[in-house]
Amino acid sequence: MPEPVNPGPRARVLIVGCGFGGLEAARALHAAPVDITVVDRANHHLFQPLLYQVATAGLSAPAIAAPVRFLFRKQANVTSLLGEVVAIDAAQRGALLRDGGSLPYDHLIVAAGATHSYFGHDEWAVHAPGLKTLDDAFEIRRRLLLAFEEAEKETDAARRDAWLTFVVIGGGPTGVEMAGTMAEIARKTLPGEFRRIDPSRARIVLVEGGPRVLQAMPESLSASARKQLEGLGVEVQLDARVVAIDAEGLEVQPAGGAAAYRIPAKCIVWAAGVAASPLGRQLAEATGAVVDRAGRVQVQADLSLAGHPEISVVGDLATAQSHAPGREPKPVPGVSPAAKQMGRLAAANILRRLRGESTQAFRYRDYGNLATIGRNSAVVDLTSPVGPVRFSGLFAWLFWLFAHIYFLIGFRNRLVVLFDWASAYWSAQRYARVVADIEERS
Amino acid sequence: MPEPVNPGPRARVLIVGCGFGGLEAARALHAAPVDITVVDRANHHLFQPLLYQVATAGLSAPAIAAPVRFLFRKQANVTSLLGEVVAIDAAQRGALLRDGGSLPYDHLIVAAGATHSYFGHDEWAVHAPGLKTLDDAFEIRRRLLLAFEEAEKETDAARRDAWLTFVVIGGGPTGVEMAGTMAEIARKTLPGEFRRIDPSRARIVLVEGGPRVLQAMPESLSASARKQLEGLGVEVQLDARVVAIDAEGLEVQPAGGAAAYRIPAKCIVWAAGVAASPLGRQLAEATGAVVDRAGRVQVQADLSLAGHPEISVVGDLATAQSHAPGREPKPVPGVSPAAKQMGRLAAANILRRLRGESTQAFRYRDYGNLATIGRNSAVVDLTSPVGPVRFSGLFAWLFWLFAHIYFLIGFRNRLVVLFDWASAYWSAQRYARVVADIEERS
Repeated sequence: MPEPVNPGPRARVLIVGCGFGGLEAARALHAAPVDITVVDRANHHLFQPLLYQVATAGLSAPAIAAPVRFLFRKQANVTSLLGEVVAIDAAQRGALLRDGGSLPYDHLIVAAGATHSYFGHDEWAVHAPGLKTLDDAFEIRRRLLLAFEEAEKETDAARRDAWLTFVVIGGGPTGVEMAGTMAEIARKTLPGEFRRIDPSRARIVLVEGGPRVLQAMPESLSASARKQLEGLGVEVQLDARVVAIDAEGLEVQPAGGAAAYRIPAKCIVWAAGVAASPLGRQLAEATGAVVDRAGRVQVQADLSLAGHPEISVVGDLATAQSHAPGREPKPVPGVSPAAKQMGRLAAANILRRLRGESTQAFRYRDYGNLATIGRNSAVVDLTSPVGPVRFSGLFAWLFWLFAHIYFLIGFRNRLVVLFDWASAYWSAQRYARVVADIEERS
Repeated sequence: MPEPVNPGPRARVLIVGCGFGGLEAARALHAAPVDITVVDRANHHLFQPLLYQVATAGLSAPAIAAPVRFLFRKQANVTSLLGEVVAIDAAQRGALLRDGGSLPYDHLIVAAGATHSYFGHDEWAVHAPGLKTLDDAFEIRRRLLLAFEEAEKETDAARRDAWLTFVVIGGGPTGVEMAGTMAEIARKTLPGEFRRIDPSRARIVLVEGGPRVLQAMPESLSASARKQLEGLGVEVQLDARVVAIDAEGLEVQPAGGAAAYRIPAKCIVWAAGVAASPLGRQLAEATGAVVDRAGRVQVQADLSLAGHPEISVVGDLATAQSHAPGREPKPVPGVSPAAKQMGRLAAANILRRLRGESTQAFRYRDYGNLATIGRNSAVVDLTSPVGPVRFSGLFAWLFWLFAHIYFLIGFRNRLVVLFDWASAYWSAQRYARVVADIEERS
């Protein structure tokens, strides 16, 4: 029998974070002669593109979250641990956990993702929660549903109007989805259930600092998205910068010197700023890497850090370039397909290093861009060999729907989500309209 | 055209609590010329018989909870409000809300239900949560799943054993269901997912102060339930009284003078004591009614209070008697069919009073008693004209399953639950194994 190629102790691969990047990296190493540890501070992998559906009571949490260790149950070379990595000790090759332990590694993939950024106004967080985790989604669901409950009880007209004003800050994909779905809830789901208020008269406002929504999309699709939002009854305020948020509403400064104005609102959602995990800055300090303004770590062409070929950074935590042969490097967008592709390349580069081969540069394959607005409403921008394919409306919504269900991790979840959507589609109902007891949460 | 029978202003019916009793009472009044207000401190009606499935990650919360106002959307004479009633002003005929408001009534049905009782040891609550609300279920789910996660990380053998010891206190239906399902999770769901521990070696202990489990059942079925529990690998400790609970475990005093012993355990669930809502004692003070040791209000034969025919108490908050013609009155058990029947009678008696008729006494129709233990395991005790019908095992489990799905409120939920169970049955998987980020909860 021939000797195994690598007869020494198996290399230890540590993957920090089990989002799209971390999950793909670990899966890509399923047949590799390595011992993998995946550590995440949640016990589940979250299908973040549908998180807004949990926040708007369209899906239950388990429909879009699968336990990390369940996903790896058949991959014997993976050990899954629940824990939060707070620092990388690049010299000793170990990751320090919040509870005091340390995880050693020979190869490290950092895929710790991103969180909200309030642009230096962290005091806004309590008034305008963002949407990154399941807890965030539950909190937004609670505020959204309880606002209608409070409005039903309120006797003062101005206060009732504030309870019935819903503001989403940020016109990216999450903000557009949230605003569109809130409008649907107010206009389609809740009418008929209240005796003192008319939920369909609720005001839904989307505030965007730039000149259009969905700025990653071509201008024609941004315009279509705006039109579809307005068709659902969303007030779209562009070139409008938020300058203050408190418990009773927010203050908006239009571009061009017009006077700032106030919107009284009790339910405000933050979908404006993304910041990399704090682990990025710590890692940069430990390795001499550079971080950008959002705290993302600048990686080399092969996704590793200069001077630390054993450390790769992937996903939203990385500022990476796409290297297509014969073209200028292009920045990689912060989207889930990019995170997955980066995870796969980082894993493949570990295997190349184990075999003594040189690593490969990252090349992002862009298949296009989708965003949904509401029932029957979406925009699609596909990349094809014959040029871009762009469409919007019902067909775009169906395309978006099936693409998302296809990519949902785990077969059971796909069926459940399809079922939930089919029933929601026919009835305009949202079955997950459950919030905890008021006494226990307030 | 003839004049309406009741040409005055419509009578105001206030229903406090939308559990089984309150929901049935409001539904029974759907065609009545009354204005009904249903107030509950949760926004949902909860199908409590399946709450243990949410706690053990077998079902998501929305599968067993429906928004109260959704349930009444087509019943135009119902206004649904979210709020907590803290006191009844029987003289002024008003219910005082925690947030300061007051709800007037002409007829009042109090169906505020029950909560846990720690028998004077409220300090145990933090170490051994009970199971009454969705929040309770999430907390137990979190402790159950995180105990296995901590065990996987633990290097000290004694501490690891404590993480892998799960204790359920109380051998009633909830305790039996919880212990049986925990054993299934340890033996069937989790094996293969851990690399350092063997979840199937977890110790599941059911501690019961009395001489048998399911004391409301005939002795033969109690014995069968115990045998089925032991078959699933549950240690059943009978005649064992809990005398202390702390963060590291509990102390148990066997009957008959044997020495007390300690069980080191990190996950402890309280299923032992039930106390009526505090509203019961307040109502008794306000009306001169009598409460029993558990705080339940003693009602008259027609479920109203002496001197207050306009106030009825139904469900777990009431101590009622069943009045069958020609027989001695018999105490009504604290089960959901009794709560529903009481709710219906209280509503019917309001209609009788409006028509100037005399009210009727409550008669409990007992169709039998079911309890499940785990997959394929249950006991059934049916009442039939030819005597009791008793069976256990697989057929009892199927009977239990379809009975519960049939009684689930809302057609969609029935389908979802059936689907979840069918898939859980074939795979031994539990899809709702999701807990929030450790950072955010700890």
